[in-house]
Formats: sequence, C-alpha cells, structure tokens
Amino acid sequence: MADVNREPRQAFSLKQIVERFGGEVLGDAAVQVDQVATLESATATQISFFTNPRYRRQLEQTQAGAVIVSREVGKIEGRTLIVCDNPYSYFARVSDFLNPPPALVPGAHPSAAIHAQAHVHPSASIGPLVAIDAGAVIGPRSAIGPGSSIGARVRIGADCRIHANVSIYDDCRIGERAILHSGVVIGADGFGLAMDAGRYRKIPQIGRVIVGDDVEIGANTTIDRGALDDTVIEEGVKLDNQIQIGHNCRIGAHTAIAGCVGIAGSTRIGRYCRIGGSAMIGGHLEIVDNVEIGGASAVAKSILKAGTYTALFPIAPHQDWLRNAAHIRHLDALARRVRELAARLAELEKTRT
Amino acid sequence: MADVNREPRQAFSLKQIVERFGGEVLGDAAVQVDQVATLESATATQISFFTNPRYRRQLEQTQAGAVIVSREVGKIEGRTLIVCDNPYSYFARVSDFLNPPPALVPGAHPSAAIHAQAHVHPSASIGPLVAIDAGAVIGPRSAIGPGSSIGARVRIGADCRIHANVSIYDDCRIGERAILHSGVVIGADGFGLAMDAGRYRKIPQIGRVIVGDDVEIGANTTIDRGALDDTVIEEGVKLDNQIQIGHNCRIGAHTAIAGCVGIAGSTRIGRYCRIGGSAMIGGHLEIVDNVEIGGASAVAKSILKAGTYTALFPIAPHQDWLRNAAHIRHLDALARRVRELAARLAELEKTRT
Amino acid sequence: MADVNREPRQAFSLKQIVERFGGEVLGDAAVQVDQVATLESATATQISFFTNPRYRRQLEQTQAGAVIVSREVGKIEGRTLIVCDNPYSYFARVSDFLNPPPALVPGAHPSAAIHAQAHVHPSASIGPLVAIDAGAVIGPRSAIGPGSSIGARVRIGADCRIHANVSIYDDCRIGERAILHSGVVIGADGFGLAMDAGRYRKIPQIGRVIVGDDVEIGANTTIDRGALDDTVIEEGVKLDNQIQIGHNCRIGAHTAIAGCVGIAGSTRIGRYCRIGGSAMIGGHLEIVDNVEIGGASAVAKSILKAGTYTALFPIAPHQDWLRNAAHIRHLDALARRVRELAARLAELEKTRT
Repeated sequence: MADVNREPRQAFSLKQIVERFGGEVLGDAAVQVDQVATLESATATQISFFTNPRYRRQLEQTQAGAVIVSREVGKIEGRTLIVCDNPYSYFARVSDFLNPPPALVPGAHPSAAIHAQAHVHPSASIGPLVAIDAGAVIGPRSAIGPGSSIGARVRIGADCRIHANVSIYDDCRIGERAILHSGVVIGADGFGLAMDAGRYRKIPQIGRVIVGDDVEIGANTTIDRGALDDTVIEEGVKLDNQIQIGHNCRIGAHTAIAGCVGIAGSTRIGRYCRIGGSAMIGGHLEIVDNVEIGGASAVAKSILKAGTYTALFPIAPHQDWLRNAAHIRHLDALARRVRELAARLAELEKTRT
Repeated sequence: MADVNREPRQAFSLKQIVERFGGEVLGDAAVQVDQVATLESATATQISFFTNPRYRRQLEQTQAGAVIVSREVGKIEGRTLIVCDNPYSYFARVSDFLNPPPALVPGAHPSAAIHAQAHVHPSASIGPLVAIDAGAVIGPRSAIGPGSSIGARVRIGADCRIHANVSIYDDCRIGERAILHSGVVIGADGFGLAMDAGRYRKIPQIGRVIVGDDVEIGANTTIDRGALDDTVIEEGVKLDNQIQIGHNCRIGAHTAIAGCVGIAGSTRIGRYCRIGGSAMIGGHLEIVDNVEIGGASAVAKSILKAGTYTALFPIAPHQDWLRNAAHIRHLDALARRVRELAARLAELEKTRT
Repeated sequence: MADVNREPRQAFSLKQIVERFGGEVLGDAAVQVDQVATLESATATQISFFTNPRYRRQLEQTQAGAVIVSREVGKIEGRTLIVCDNPYSYFARVSDFLNPPPALVPGAHPSAAIHAQAHVHPSASIGPLVAIDAGAVIGPRSAIGPGSSIGARVRIGADCRIHANVSIYDDCRIGERAILHSGVVIGADGFGLAMDAGRYRKIPQIGRVIVGDDVEIGANTTIDRGALDDTVIEEGVKLDNQIQIGHNCRIGAHTAIAGCVGIAGSTRIGRYCRIGGSAMIGGHLEIVDNVEIGGASAVAKSILKAGTYTALFPIAPHQDWLRNAAHIRHLDALARRVRELAARLAELEKTRT
C-alpha cells in the first residue's frame, strides 16, 4: 500500500460512508476508516469486503474496522458491517473515495514537444517529454504521461489518462474517460501483405482505430489500424495487458479481455463477452454477445451461440503426458479399431444365439 | 479512413491507372477515383478489388467506381473493371499511389538528443525527443519517430521508417527500407543463464541483431541479440505485433509471422515459411523452407519437410470439454484396453470356428 | 560480435585467467585470448566452452585458442583446455571479464526531466530524455536509459541497469543490481473490475510492485501493481521477454520464466521453478518450489508437488491433425463404447465356458 511521502490519509466514519453510498451499518456507525484492505491484512482503521464464501473464516478472524457484505450475510457477532446489494462494487466506490487520484497539474511541462498546430485544452496536463503532432486534439482534464507520442490529427476526449510511453499513430480517436497504460500502441499498421513474384508487397493501412468512452487498455497492448475501414473498440471495453488486436476487428461494448490474448484481423466480438487470458482468436470470425472463452483456448471457428467454451489440453506430470499424448496422433486409428471390434463382436453374438 | 485536415485528395482516371500499372479497363476508362475501399463501403469515386469468391455478391452490389479483378472474372454487366494478373497486389500498388506517405521533413527536431559522434544523413528526419548515441549511423531519407532510442554504433540503412518509442540497443544493424513499429525492441539481452551454487549467473550477450532489407516489424515485437554469434532476420521477413524472437535465431528470407508468436533461442526457420498467430516454437529447432504452422500450434520438434502443420485442441462448449478432456489423461489405458479386447475377441473367434 | 569503433580488445593469458577464476590449464598457459566465442566460430585468440556431449565433434574441430571443459573431459590431443567444475558458469565469468560493460558516465544528461524533489545519487547515470518524478530515489551507480519514466516515490537500489523506454509507475520498488530491459512496464494497474448494472467499475489498484535484488526483467515484460497488497518478485528471479504477471502474484526467489508466459492474478509460484516459454498459468493458484512447467503448457490447477509437468497438443501434418483431432470431441463416447464392448465380450466369454 503506497503512501510513502503522500498526504496524511483522511478518515471517514461508517455513517459518512453510508450517507454517501447507501447501505446500512450493522454495529457502531462512528467507527472511522481511512483505507481499504483485504480481510487478512486489514487493521482497525481499515475497511474490507466479503463476497466469496471460501473466505468465511477470514471474515470471522479479520481485524478490519468494518467489512462490506451482502444482505444475505446478516449480523455477525463482534463484527462491524456495512450491508449492501453489491459488496464488491460498493467496495470499489469506497476505495475510490479513500484513494482519490493525484490532483492534475494543468498545462504542459516545458520539455514537452507540442506542435504549434496541436490543440491542447488548457485544463489538460501534458507530462515531460511528451510529443504531440499537428492537428492533434487533447480534451479537457486529460493527462498525457512522460514520453508518450500523440500522432497528427489524433483526438483524445475529456478526462482521459494516458500513462507513460504510450504511442498513438496519426488519425486515431480515443473517447472520454479512457485509460491507456504504458507501452500501449494504438494504430500501428495492420498485417496486410500481397505476395507478388516471390516478395511481399505491403498493403497500405488507411483505416483508423476508434476507441470508445470508458475503455481501459492494459500495458503493452497493441491495437492495429484498419486496412480500409476502421478498427473499433466500443464503449466500456476492458482490455488487460499484452493483448494484440488485429486490423478491422470490432470489440463489442462492455466486453472484458484478459492478458496476452491475440485476436487476428477482421474478427467481430460481441457485447459482454469475457475472454480468458492467453486465448487466441482467429481472423474473420464472428463471436456473438455473452460468450465466455476459457483461458488459453484457441478459437478457430465462429461462435454463434452464447455460452462458455473451452479448449485446454489437460496438464499432467511429464511422464504421464508422454505416455498419453502419443495416442492423440492415432485417435482415428483407435476409433476405427473400436468400430471394427464392435462389428466382430456383434457377429459373434449372432452366432451364439 | 483518415483524411481529417489532410490535403484534398487527388483523383485519377482508370486510364491513368492502367497506363501506370498495366491491366485493362473493361468499361469507361474515364471514370475517376481518388481512394481505395472495400466492396461494401466504396462510393462512386473509390476503387475496390475482388479476389475471394465468397464476396461475389458484394461484387455485384458494390457502389465502387471501379473494381480490380482477375482475368478469370471477365465482364460483369454494369460494372467498371480493371482486369489484371494479381488483383490484390495491383490493389496494393493503386492504394500506395492514392495514399502517398506524408512528406518527410529532413533534419532533426530541436528536442532530439543526438550525440556529437552520431552520423545522421542530412536527408534523414529525426523526430522530437529521439535519442541517438555515439557512433550510430542513420541512412538517407530514413525517419525516426518521437521518443525512439538508437544505441551506440547502431546502423540504420536508407529509407527506413522507425516509428515512435522504438528501442534499438548498441551495435545492432537495420537494412534498407525496413519498417519498425512503435514499441519494438531490437537487441535486448538474450535469456542466457548458468546456475551456479543456487544462483543464476548471467551469460553476457555479446552478439548483435542483424535485420535485412525490406523487413517490417510489428508493434511491441522483441528480437534479442545473440549470445555469441548474431541473431539474423533475413531480407523481406514480415513480423506482426508482439512477436518474441530469442537469441541466435535465424529467420529465413520472405517468411511471414503473425502476431504473438514466440520463438525460443537458436532456432532456424527457413525461407517463405508462414507461422500462424500465437504459435510457439521451441529452442534449438530447425524448420525448413516453405513450412506453414497453424495458429496457436506449439512446435517442440524440428520440421524437416515442407508442408502445413497443426496442433490445436478443438474448442467445445465447456461441459462437453469437461467430459471429453478428462479422457486424455487415460488415453494410454484406453488404447491398452482396446488391444486387450481385440486379443480376447480373436481368442473367442478361434473357438467359434 | 560487436566491436565496431570500440576500444581495442585487451588480451589475457590462460595463466592470468586461472589465477583469477581457478581451474587448471591443460596445455600452454601462455596462450592469450581476448574474446569468447562458440566452438564453431572461435579463432586462435578466442576461448570457447564445451558442456553438451552432442557438440563433441565441434570440440575436436574447433580453432579456438582454448576451451573450458569439465574435469570429466580430461586431456584432448592438440587442444588447450581449462578444466574446472562448472564450465558454463566459468565461461560466463570469463566472458564478463573480457567484455566489461561500458563505463558509466555519472550525472544526468541535460535533456532529462528530473523533478526538483527527486533524489538521484551523484554516481548514478541518467540518460537523455529520462523523466523522474517527485520523491523518486535512484541509487548509487544505477543507470537509467533514454526515454524511461520513473514515477513518483519509486525507489531504485544500487547498481541497477534500466534500459531505454522503461516505465515504472508511482511507488514501486526495485532492489539492487536489477536489470530492466526496454519496454518493461512495472506497476500498471491490475485488471480489477466489478460489474455493476451492466457496466464495469474499476477497482482502484493501490498496492505496489516490489522487485528484489538481482532480478532481470526482459524486454516488454509487464508486472502489474497489487490491488490491495503488493505484487512481489523475489530476489534472483529471471524473467525473459514479453511476460505478463498479474496483480498480487508472488514469484519465488531464483525462479526462471521464459518468454511470452502469462500469469494471472494472485498466483504464487515457488522458488527455483522453471516455466517454459508461452506457458499460461491461471489465477489464484499455488505452485510449489522446484516445479518445471513445459513450454506452451496451460496450468489451470495448483501444483502441490515438485516435478516436471506438460500439457502440449502434439503437432502433426494438417491432414493427420484434422483426422485425429475430431475424435477429441467424442472421447467420452469412445471410452463408453469400449466399456460396453468389454462387458459384452465378458458375457460371451462366460457362455463359452
């Protein structure tokens, strides 16, 4: 928990918290808390939450000053609780409240290289060593971190947070309240090649990347610009680190994608999907709304029905794997053999009767 | 399609286009076009292409001013066509022609930190906040994007395009006409460790990375320097985003590798190979020319014969997967059981006769 | 081998080398060497090593001035050898000795943007275009490469090497002698989301990343800060390129992880583990000490026993794969069929007797 050299923390009573966020205090509403913590590590001036029944024992043993729980949990002897409908989301709001982001310093650091024809809102905060090219627009209260490069004619909406060393290529657009973490690359050329007499010829990538409102993009994630049309990340999409999204993909609103996922070009993913870490999704596919893909699963065909899908080779001690995996190369022969045995057995059974 | 605040587009007649690139106009050669587009989105002043029979219907319904097709397609009632041998490559050339890259501004931005002993060609364009170290050589008409770092004694050939926030370590070499996208790292240390009394000792990585002519390297791709000898990317290799290439690999000329592929150290890949996205290739392997590896396939042994190879666990609804995958841990037992049944059945069959 | 425009190399006799590092010369101890090389490419003024019996032939044919070998190898006619206990580690030390790192230039490049309240040790070397924020501490003899961004209150110990374009978020800590390669991102927000009425709400990530002593982190690797507690990388951990480590993970001391591995949040990995390239490890798991995970293997359950584990679909020519993989979707049916055949066969066998 990071408060070395920070402002002293401000404490709030549970009464103040429920006045602000709703819910009900079971126990002493005068208890004061100044930080959030896990059940395991919380102290008497910290507030925690309980959602997973597996941690019931920790709930009983916690030193936390208060715990946020759902209405079903009810009273617990000797525990001060805030009961509410969605404890995890409530906890997120309390954490936001107790951990306000550092105040933005409006204006540009003198070391930033801002083109004379860029349009930076006076309330925006441009960090040291940022490059902003001609025609770029930086919206109100947006912050650009050190070393980031904003290409020509890029438009970044209001209240965005672009961290250090982000690269946004020419003409791309970022909505409002977007968060781009360090090392993100938006708008690099898609992988478009035409083979011509033994050499690849590059297909110019003239589309853009359009990122909607309330999108968060994790560290070192890359989203390629469209070949002809745009690559589109709809509002509320949440992308973890090191994800690769190919040209002309469209990711539907409020879809969440975990780290290291690769999505090849021209694939469309629906709304409210959840893609597990290290999954791989082929190109030119369609995945409908509300699909969940398991971690490390490869998707080579469209998925046209909502549901949960998995493709995972089960791990095993290496010697067991050696023994079993070899048979995969002969599954067809094994299946044929079983069919053949069944036929011979049926024949025998006939002669018996 | 990105033309906000850009120069007004220049239009060309189909006649001008075939004069420049060959092919033949079927229909009105006076039709003027100023941009390329997909069959689906093209307007009357745009030119599209048709190569995939699956899009035949879109060819018939397109609003495009003209369509580039192969000779086999022939005349289509009411459509203006350019017929040629390789429509996709022809389209790439037309797109290049209609979308010339922004003119290079020769010289260095005043915020660049260029070592007094670096050699930057006067026709090269060094963007803002670029660092170039001692002894580095930047060739004619090459451009270095904002925030990139060019190490000591690095040599970059003519007509290269190094995008923003690229890092090239000391002593590496980049050929001519290479394109390096944002976040690329060339020449970081390979992963070389010797275990010594319970602690790893780092093996100094004293080789270089040598990148040939006409290589394109996608965003956030990393290529490690050799341990002793060099890591080599031969001419015409095309690498997509987020690829990792270990120390001492050699990638043969005109091989194309899709996103998120990992290649462990000392592996040699032939010429004209095609590696699908998220594939993983082990270390110290040899893969001959003209091998195609399917997406998400892991290669743990050398491949000494050209052809297409796949290793993909088939995806299924999670409940089906649960039911089926469990058997993989017992495939050997299943196969033995089938052999045993076959023996007993043969025994029975003998007694019958 | 990179010595273009470098200092002339200094040569040392084998006698000087064994005086410094131990071991014994078999042959002429006056032989002088000035560089390390592979058996295959070494010349008479270079020293090589031999550890892998597969390269015995190369040992016999090498032109190397000397070869470092284990005591078991013994004398070889016409070869000058250094015999020692751990030839690979010995080689590493000789290579370090012959390839000293470039001398550090203490002080800050004038283009660096260092906050007035940062604490940079006078012996540290701050490269061009580096940003260092308020309260950050850079230890003695540490070097920060061009374009890197060091957040507020970050602490970097002594003798670290932070390469170009690294991003370290506020409050993270790096131990002594750590090496961070280009594009590394330390301390970006973990992927924490609470669904609330159809929209994700971000969970503030208020933990830090704590990196121990002697850790090396490869290019473009990302390590997320903890949600509440810290993410911890213990001493001596070695991470290759493009690894993703989620929030609240703990990686045990002296564990080595190869490229492209993804580790989801809250997973604890033991000491002295070895994780192969492109492996994927799920969240909230425990992996004990001395576990080895094969490349490209997905781990979805905790591993509570030391040993080697694998999960790899065997690669095959595409047509063979097509034929065999289809059966995986029907393994349960196949196993049931075999059970049923066995029962019917047993029935028949009974009637025969």
